[in-house]
This record gives sequence, structure tokens and C-alpha cells, in this order.
Amino acid sequence: MLGIAATLIGACTFGQVAAQTFQRLGGCPKLGCVFPPDRTDFLSGQFFDIRVEVHAPINGSEAAHGGVADENFTFCIQRGRGECQSATRFFSVKEPTLEKWTFSYFEDLFARDAGAPSIVNVASKAYRGLTLTTPGEYTARLKYFSGSETVANWVVREPATKRKAKNVLFFIGDGMTQSMITAARLIAHKSINGRYQTLMQMDQMDNLGHQMTHSLDSFITDSANSATALYTGKKASVSALNVYADSSKNSFDDPKIETIAEMFRRRIGGPIGMVSTAVIADATPAALCAHTRDRDRFPEIVAEYLNNAIAINSTFTWPTGCSGPDVVFGGGAENFIAGPSSPNGTDFYAAYRAKGYNVVWNNTALQAVGNDKKVLGIFSSMAKWVDRNVFPQNLRGLKDSPSGDGTDAVDQPGLKQMTIKAIDILQQRQKQKKTGWFMMSEAASIDKMMHVLDYDRALGELLELDDTIRASIEHLKKIGEYEDTLIVITADHGHGFDVFGGADTKYLAAQTTDIGKRSAVGVYQNSGLSGYTVTEGSLPNNNTVIFGSQGPNFPVQWNPRYTYAAGFGANPDHREDYAINQAGPRLPATPGDDGIFRVNPQDQPADGTIPGDQPQGVHSLTDVSVFANGPGSETFRGVYNNIDIFFKIADALALGSSGR
Amino acid sequence: MLGIAATLIGACTFGQVAAQTFQRLGGCPKLGCVFPPDRTDFLSGQFFDIRVEVHAPINGSEAAHGGVADENFTFCIQRGRGECQSATRFFSVKEPTLEKWTFSYFEDLFARDAGAPSIVNVASKAYRGLTLTTPGEYTARLKYFSGSETVANWVVREPATKRKAKNVLFFIGDGMTQSMITAARLIAHKSINGRYQTLMQMDQMDNLGHQMTHSLDSFITDSANSATALYTGKKASVSALNVYADSSKNSFDDPKIETIAEMFRRRIGGPIGMVSTAVIADATPAALCAHTRDRDRFPEIVAEYLNNAIAINSTFTWPTGCSGPDVVFGGGAENFIAGPSSPNGTDFYAAYRAKGYNVVWNNTALQAVGNDKKVLGIFSSMAKWVDRNVFPQNLRGLKDSPSGDGTDAVDQPGLKQMTIKAIDILQQRQKQKKTGWFMMSEAASIDKMMHVLDYDRALGELLELDDTIRASIEHLKKIGEYEDTLIVITADHGHGFDVFGGADTKYLAAQTTDIGKRSAVGVYQNSGLSGYTVTEGSLPNNNTVIFGSQGPNFPVQWNPRYTYAAGFGANPDHREDYAINQAGPRLPATPGDDGIFRVNPQDQPADGTIPGDQPQGVHSLTDVSVFANGPGSETFRGVYNNIDIFFKIADALALGSSGR
Repeated sequence: MLGIAATLIGACTFGQVAAQTFQRLGGCPKLGCVFPPDRTDFLSGQFFDIRVEVHAPINGSEAAHGGVADENFTFCIQRGRGECQSATRFFSVKEPTLEKWTFSYFEDLFARDAGAPSIVNVASKAYRGLTLTTPGEYTARLKYFSGSETVANWVVREPATKRKAKNVLFFIGDGMTQSMITAARLIAHKSINGRYQTLMQMDQMDNLGHQMTHSLDSFITDSANSATALYTGKKASVSALNVYADSSKNSFDDPKIETIAEMFRRRIGGPIGMVSTAVIADATPAALCAHTRDRDRFPEIVAEYLNNAIAINSTFTWPTGCSGPDVVFGGGAENFIAGPSSPNGTDFYAAYRAKGYNVVWNNTALQAVGNDKKVLGIFSSMAKWVDRNVFPQNLRGLKDSPSGDGTDAVDQPGLKQMTIKAIDILQQRQKQKKTGWFMMSEAASIDKMMHVLDYDRALGELLELDDTIRASIEHLKKIGEYEDTLIVITADHGHGFDVFGGADTKYLAAQTTDIGKRSAVGVYQNSGLSGYTVTEGSLPNNNTVIFGSQGPNFPVQWNPRYTYAAGFGANPDHREDYAINQAGPRLPATPGDDGIFRVNPQDQPADGTIPGDQPQGVHSLTDVSVFANGPGSETFRGVYNNIDIFFKIADALALGSSGR
Repeated sequence: MLGIAATLIGACTFGQVAAQTFQRLGGCPKLGCVFPPDRTDFLSGQFFDIRVEVHAPINGSEAAHGGVADENFTFCIQRGRGECQSATRFFSVKEPTLEKWTFSYFEDLFARDAGAPSIVNVASKAYRGLTLTTPGEYTARLKYFSGSETVANWVVREPATKRKAKNVLFFIGDGMTQSMITAARLIAHKSINGRYQTLMQMDQMDNLGHQMTHSLDSFITDSANSATALYTGKKASVSALNVYADSSKNSFDDPKIETIAEMFRRRIGGPIGMVSTAVIADATPAALCAHTRDRDRFPEIVAEYLNNAIAINSTFTWPTGCSGPDVVFGGGAENFIAGPSSPNGTDFYAAYRAKGYNVVWNNTALQAVGNDKKVLGIFSSMAKWVDRNVFPQNLRGLKDSPSGDGTDAVDQPGLKQMTIKAIDILQQRQKQKKTGWFMMSEAASIDKMMHVLDYDRALGELLELDDTIRASIEHLKKIGEYEDTLIVITADHGHGFDVFGGADTKYLAAQTTDIGKRSAVGVYQNSGLSGYTVTEGSLPNNNTVIFGSQGPNFPVQWNPRYTYAAGFGANPDHREDYAINQAGPRLPATPGDDGIFRVNPQDQPADGTIPGDQPQGVHSLTDVSVFANGPGSETFRGVYNNIDIFFKIADALALGSSGR
């Protein structure tokens, strides 16, 4: 252990740099941590836990206090300018047990390479199942190490008092950026002389907004913490589902936040639905109902859907939950078939049946099942739209039937079939009490296919989402619910992608050199026109509108000679050092004797981009679009934070309260 | 010459594929071409030319009619379901002279490599200076080769009758995508626990829309034809300024379209301004007033600003023009100093002075010049915001004084200084007749710096644009014009860019291997927080808001250790063939014995992306954002085509007419 005096000298400068690639604990600005952290907004009546931690690093740049965490910290809450009351008095709860643990982290990449972690001792308390019902400003103060203080400013927003929307249909295109929407429109909608003859359904929504997707403690987010922001109105950390990530080992003791689905269930008592083309325990659906800092705990997550958080953490009070969503449609049979990936190795289909669910495993059964009971629909690993519709042979030989009987899952529903059926079930199940319903429907594989750089499949998923939105609007009109339904469509985060030209695949295939193949890409005027919207053998710029067998909103052909050239790589050869070019703009590439532009030997030192341990493309920073129709939808215009989406939906439903 | 029969067999299939990388003539669907082409919308009273061409390819896949173009074509115009009258009768104009020429093009990349062009004979006529004043549908019919017909459907839109806006302030961030706005916000605005404490001015505008930027004949656009769309409401081709590109050699005989600036001048008689951080003859400002299919004809373009199109093409009637914009602020002294790049080698500063302009060459003179007369301000090659404000030493030694005296241009205005001064001049010059004014202000180097992959400078230019918008709003409020001014902010096209993580520049510099340097990039939770908004030595996640010397809306430091990692390249090593993966998603990268993911040897055959003759990044497909405030701004919500921006602005000004 280093001496205190010696390390304090360097603490200021090293502390700040260490707070980047790796952080001691995200959202914790000093040695005392308060969760919910500074700048947290609550819906009045929304349940949450509090966790406070006091850190004593025993080595590294922040080493202090002999590595002994202050167990005599105090924690108080103050409303407005009132007195700061001890949390136990303020919330009328018992003093929590003091918890202690130790964790380690690397201060930066040098420390990681050296195998030299910083070790931190922790003293902590957690206050469970709390709520604030009076709108206004609050201050939470953690005092420790005689004189240090960490302050968190909280706001309980003024809730809407009048319910505008009966139903909410919330669509998420995972990782869906505007660049992807533009590309999908290009390949699926006929254009004549630069003017589209039809548009995406998203394009035609009444209201357009942008949301900012940053995390609590990193500017790039993943699907777990971005969904947490959308469903709870709280910024969280990567991998965290409706909890603030604390520094303890237990992935289920982190401080929880109540979700919009839980509040809809608790306050209105209406049916809720989760529909996804992902494994149903995946982050975006999971964030409706699960609470864990580790999104990969799939068995616990499907158990939590059914039995609430209490099932896993019976020692903690958590007075709310989804209590078994009325509709659970997606993939991931391995989490239900008795085996290593199911809860406690049990047959979890049986657990759902025991709670009154119908269970279906294919599209035929899905369409045939009644609308009265809750339904669990698990449909294999969820083939992509392109495979289901263009290359159905790819569904053969996988032996992935969700029944576990070793046959192929060839009769799979798409997002549209799942969503329309879900509407019917939710509509039926709210009929008696006329509560309305809440549903989240996710096109999950936009992002998944972007990760593996399979742009065609990603755009197929995006077009299926758009087709699902169109069909849902039609269906809602048919059943008389359209005018009462708030429809919101957005993404959870970005993923670097854009189209930068066209490619002549025939020419590319005929070239034998790398640089020859690259010249098959046409940029600017040579990008050409979309070959996807006309049948083989017809002119791309003729006036005949021809639709494919999948209807007017999908490509007529998926494999034209002239394709779009896309990705996240329209640069000449170049290197990056990611620092500002102080002497002025550089020449990234210079021509060789052959006239070909190659990396400028004078340029920055680093080839390549993402770390070598990353096998896939990664998420990006960009704001993502929000489209909305229906009662309350006018509030979705403009530019705002992802957490605001929760408050906008909650206000349309008047979910906030001044009492429980 | 090949026989007709032999080539006709292949014509259908080869014709369509050839219409991609290279096209015989963009917007021409058959052997007969009509410009304005099919699906053109007009503002009533807007001037335009018509060009019709009949093509007879003498070789290649389309060879026909013995290579002899039909000179006996007929061309008629029909309103609604009425009679199709000959164009001369319909417009009451004389029969134009028949023109004939020959041009060649490559049918595809194979033909280019073989040096085997297709040669086309042309018969053509042009009808000049026309207008349609009655709203409704029109059909133009070109009949040729006894039985062939090319039809163009036109619409004259119903014009707004009531003027809503007195002034229009139109900002263009060249190549500015939402990804760039998001990144600029990240580095310039303080965030605490994922929540911004301040926002961009753009974020705070009342109305948000998206515009689609596709060209007439390619899905990727350049700044010339996208500006043509924004200012005329017409889709055009790459490099074309307010003309449809015909197939003749002359770059100034192509059919023209009247711009919003010309209409504002002609119909309202108010002052107009063009302000840009580019060379003032560059495409985005040029498209306000110039008419040529070749955006690079800078001397002719600056001459056309002053003397209208008639100065260059005195044989053609063009009854409109900017007639010397009241404000011309930008760079490009070489087009004014007597020499090889000035019009006819003359001193063109003198030509502007002779027409009543004050001429200024630096910021001091700009701020001192009176507001009564027209002003030409030429300020060197226009240094970037980062160089002017952070690295001013980069302005030294360039000997680029716009006076041509060989001194350094160190006293340069930025976009903000130019725009505010322009407002004052325009405001003064409209005072007598109270006409209001029209101004376009362009942040040109967002795109230019993206081209050379200098993201810091590009974001600096974007932040300067945002600062200019903020200052303009304040200034308009101060002079009492804010409520009467329609402010629109948008881009002309996309440019592939996104932020995919953070980079530890210190660690990167210390690594000696390529893959080691790549591991300095942190993705997801390791992206960290913005180091640009805090001073060196302070924690990025503390709560102290610290502003840099440039005010609260710029980075506090530009060279932190932990930077954003951006670009258009967040992929693992991989190769592309740009064709659909029929067998399902691929593994783009596979791990070697060292655990590092490198290109999957089974994957697609092409490394790299853009052609080797491209030294820079290129434009992209994505829809771009539109922000708007003021009278008429509510029409800018939602998703629409770039041409609609012209109609929205024209309607706010009630520029359309039922007579001239």
C-alpha cells in the first residue's frame, strides 16, 4: 500500500484521466457515491431504491484514508430549501444494514497492460422500495470522511393530470439511425427523377423528433441502459437493466427503478405486451420488466418477467413488477426448455403455463390461439425477414424448433404477425375494465445485422418494422382503437452506417486486384439509381412502378448487379491518431507513381479503427429519430433526451401521481 | 458501326445496367429527352428553359436508326386533359433553331477499361425564358423516330397568396448530418450524468424536419445540384447549377431554372445576400444566382452574379437574374484579382466597384463599411474557426491577402461577423421600400474538413454555425425583425461520419504496433465522457461548469488526452463484395491464434472501400435535418424532399404568381 501523502500529489491529474476508458464507478464523482445520482428526474409516485457507497482506494492514484472506508457516513434528503432529514426519517424506513465489500478496477490501459488493478474498500447502505410523490426539487447529501460531501440534485416532475392516450404502442428499431431509414427507403421505394412515388410509413407520421442517447457514464450506449432510459426516465450504465450499477459483486442487489410497464400495471391495472425479434430475454424487451446490472442473466430475466424481482431477491422489498406480461413473443427457447440455460434447470414453459399462459411455438399456433388468456410465444432463434421471405432454405437444417423436439423452426411469425396478434390479445384482455394497454414491439435485428455488417438483412428488418407499423395502424383503425392509441417509433442508440455510393458487383467480381475491386464503387454521379425497385431487365429510370411479391414496400429484387455501397468506411486509405491536427488540415492520402491514392506516409500513426478484440461493428453516438402519432404525440417534436420519452409517454397515460 | 439487328437483342438487358455507373444522359429515360424532365414541379410564374434532345447511338448496346438522329421530332405541351399544343404555340414563342452535335460516354466500367465509348448523334431544340402561371397538371410530349414518345408530367403548384415572412435567413451547414450535430454538442456542451446542461441553438428551434437529398440521376448528390434543389425546387445532376445538364459541350447553354433569389429580386425587388466561408464562387453560394452545368467555372460565376446569365450567353433570352446581390461575402480573391482566374483576366474588384459596390478585404474594414451601398467582402481562403481561434499561427505565412499585396490575411471575419454585418446591410437597403430581405449564409467547411477527415475542424465549423445562428437570433431581436424573419437551417447533403467511441491518445502514442494502437479506442462503456468540456486537470464528471474563452458553446480544450474516436470506419477488419449474403449473415472477422480478430479469410473478396482515384471522403445518402423558426416555419416539420424547401420558403414569401 502506498503512503497517503505520496499519492495525493498525483491524484488530481491522474484521477481525471482515469475517469475515461475505465471508471472507478460510473456516476460517482468523488469517493462518496449516491444512486440515483445527481440530475435525476422522477415521475411522481415512481418506485426506486437508493444506494450510497463510500470508497477507500487502498492503492493507485486515489489511495486515501489508509484504505479504510468510512462506516460512519450520514445520508440525508432535503426537499426544496427545507431541512435535510436523515433518509430513514424522510422516507419513514428502518436504518439499512451496513454492507462492506472490496472491488478492483484498472485506472487506464497502461494499468491494464501492467496487470496492476486499483483496489477499493467500500462501506454502503441501500434503502429499498421508496417513492417521492410531491413534485419539486430535492437534494440528497452523503457526508463522509469528516468533511467530504457528495450531493445529488433530484427533481420530481409535475405530472400530467389528464390521461390523453388509452393505449400505447411503442416501436423500437434497435440501432436504427436516420441513415438506415434513408437507405431502406432507397431500396424499397420507387423513385422517378429523384422523387419518391411512395414513402415509408415512418416518413408519414405526424410528429418528428430527435433523442440524445448518451449513457450515465459513457457517451456511447448499449441496448440495456438505453432501454432503461426510455422505460424509466433514468440514465444508467452499459449492461444495466432498470438499476444503477453499484460496485458490489451481486448483479441483483443494485438499486432498482420502476419501469413504465410496471407503473402501467400497478397504477392502471391494464395488460402489457412485449414483442421482439430477439431472444425474449434480450436487453430491449428485458428492460420492460427486469432489474439487474447484468443483461446477460437470461434465466433470471425470464423468471423475473413471471414472478417479479422478488423471486430473485427475496430479501429486498420491491413493491412493483410486471407480474407476467400478458403477451411475451420472441425467441430464445433455450431459456425455457429444461436445461443449463433455463431458470434452475427447470421446464419454464411449464412455469408459464402454471401461471395461466397459453404457450405457442409457431405462427400457425400463434394465429390460432385464443385472445382471452395470456400468451407466451417462443419462435426459435428468430430468422431474419430476408431469410424468411427471400432465402427460406436458410431456415432448414437448424433443428431449432422452440419445442425442443429437434425439428426445424420453419413456420415462424415475423414482427408484423406477432404485433397484430399481440394487439388483439391486449385489446381483448382490457375489454372488461377498459384500461387500455401498453405494448413494446422491437425490430431487434436491425442492430444485430449491423453488428455483423450484413446491411441487406439489417435493412430487411427495418423494412419489416415499417411494414409492421403500417399494418398496425390499419389494424387499429379496423378495431376502432387508432384515435385512442399513442404510437411512438424510435431507436435506442445509433450504429455507424451510411451509403456512400453504388457498386457494380459484376465488375467487382471480374477484378483480380484490391484496388481494381475498389474501383467498382461509384461515388457522386456514378452512384446511379436504385436497382432494387425494378425487375431484372428493366431500366431503373423508367416510369413503370413494379412491386415485388412482398408488397409495394419491399425491394423487387435483392441481388441486382448495381447495388448500394454502404457501411462505415468511405474513406481513402488513411491513419488516425484521434488528436487535433494543430498545423491545419492534413492530406489523408497521397498518390503513388500509379496515380492511386494511398495512405500519406506523413500522416497519423494508427491504421485501423476499433480494438482487435472486437469482432463486430459497434454502436455510435448519433441522435436517433422519433416518430409519433396519436393522442399526446405532439410532445414528441423537437430535440430532447432519451429519458424524456419515458415522461412523455407517462404523461400521455397520466401515470404520475401525488399518492401511491 | 454494328448492325442494328445484332445489337437490339442485347439492348434491353445491357441498356438497364449501363444506366447506373455511367448514364447516357441523366433524366433521359429513352432515346428522346425532355428537360425539365418527368415529375417536375414549378412555382407559378417561375422562369425556365426547355431543352429536348433526340439521341441516335451509332454503336454500343443502344445503337439504332443507323446512328441518324430524327430531326423531325415534334414537341407539344398539354394542360390537364386539354389539347397538346406545339410548344411554340403554347408559349407563343418562335420555333427554335435545330441544333446538332455528337457526344460519347462509356456504358459501364468494362467499356471504360477497354477504351470503348458509345457515340451518340443528337438533334435538339431549346425554348428559352418560359413560364407557367396557371396552377395544375401539364404534360410535355416529345415524339420522334415515328412512334416513340417521351412524356414529362409537370405540376404547377398552387401558390400561397398571403405573405407570412418579411425576411428569410437561410443557413446551410454544408454536408452537415445529424451525427455531426450530435458530436459537436458532445464536445462543446457540458453534460452531467448523461444530461446536457446547455443545448445547441439548432436543438432549440421550434420546428424539426428531415429532407431527402437524392439527385435527379444519382442517389448521392454534390453541393451544386443539391443547392439547385433547395433554391429552385428542381432536381438536377451533379455539378449542375440551376440548369438541367444536357449532352452538348457548352456548359452555359443548358436549360435554366429561376432561383429563389432571382424571384425575390424580380417579384419583390428586395435586397439579397450571399455569405459563405467558402470561395464565393463555390457551388452553394453560386447556386443562388449562377446558371451553368459546370460548377467549376468560377470566373464566369462571379461575372454572372454581377451581370446575370445574359452576360455570358447573350444569344439566349433569360429574363431574370440576381443583378448584383446586395451582399457578397466569402473567399476566393483569385477570381477578382486581375489574372488567369478572373473574368477575362480583368480586375473584377473594379467591375464590382463600377456597379456601386464597396469592396472590403478584412474584418476591420467589414465592420467599418457603411450599410447603405452594396458590399463585396472577399477575405482570403477563409481560415477555419479552429485556426482563427485556437491556432492563429496557422494564418501566418500564407501571403493570401485578398488585396493581392502578398501580405498574410490575418484579420479575417468568421461566419458570425459576416452574417451579422450582412443583416445590417440588407436591413438598411430594404428600409425605403420595406421589401424585407433574403439571405443565404453557409458554413462551407463542415463538408470541406470532412472530406480531408479533419473532424475537429469540421466540428469547429459546425459550432461556429450554431454560434452564428444564436447571434443572428439575438441580433434580429435587437433590431426588431425576429418575429418577421423565417429562419431555416439545413444541410445540402450527407457525409459519412459518426462517433463510435473514445480514444486514449497518450496510450495510442505509446504503442508500437498497429493492433496496439487500435486498442487505444474504447467502445461502449469504455467510450467515457467528453474531455472537451472541462479544463485540463479536472474531473469530466464533476459538476463545475467551465466555459472556454470562446464562450459557453465551444470546447474548453481541443486537445484532451481522451478524445472522441470518429470517422467512417468503426468496423473490424473485413472485406466487402456489396452483394447480399444469400446463405445468411457472415462472420466478418475471425480470431487468430493471438485472439485478435482479423478479416475472415472466407469472407467477401474486396478490401477497402472507395476507388483509388478518390483522395478524400465522399458524400453520403442520409436524410439531413431541417430546423426552422419564425413565420411559415411550421411547414418545415416532418419528412420531405429537398425541392420542397424551395416551395416552403417561396410560399412564406408568397413568391408564386398567376401573372408575371
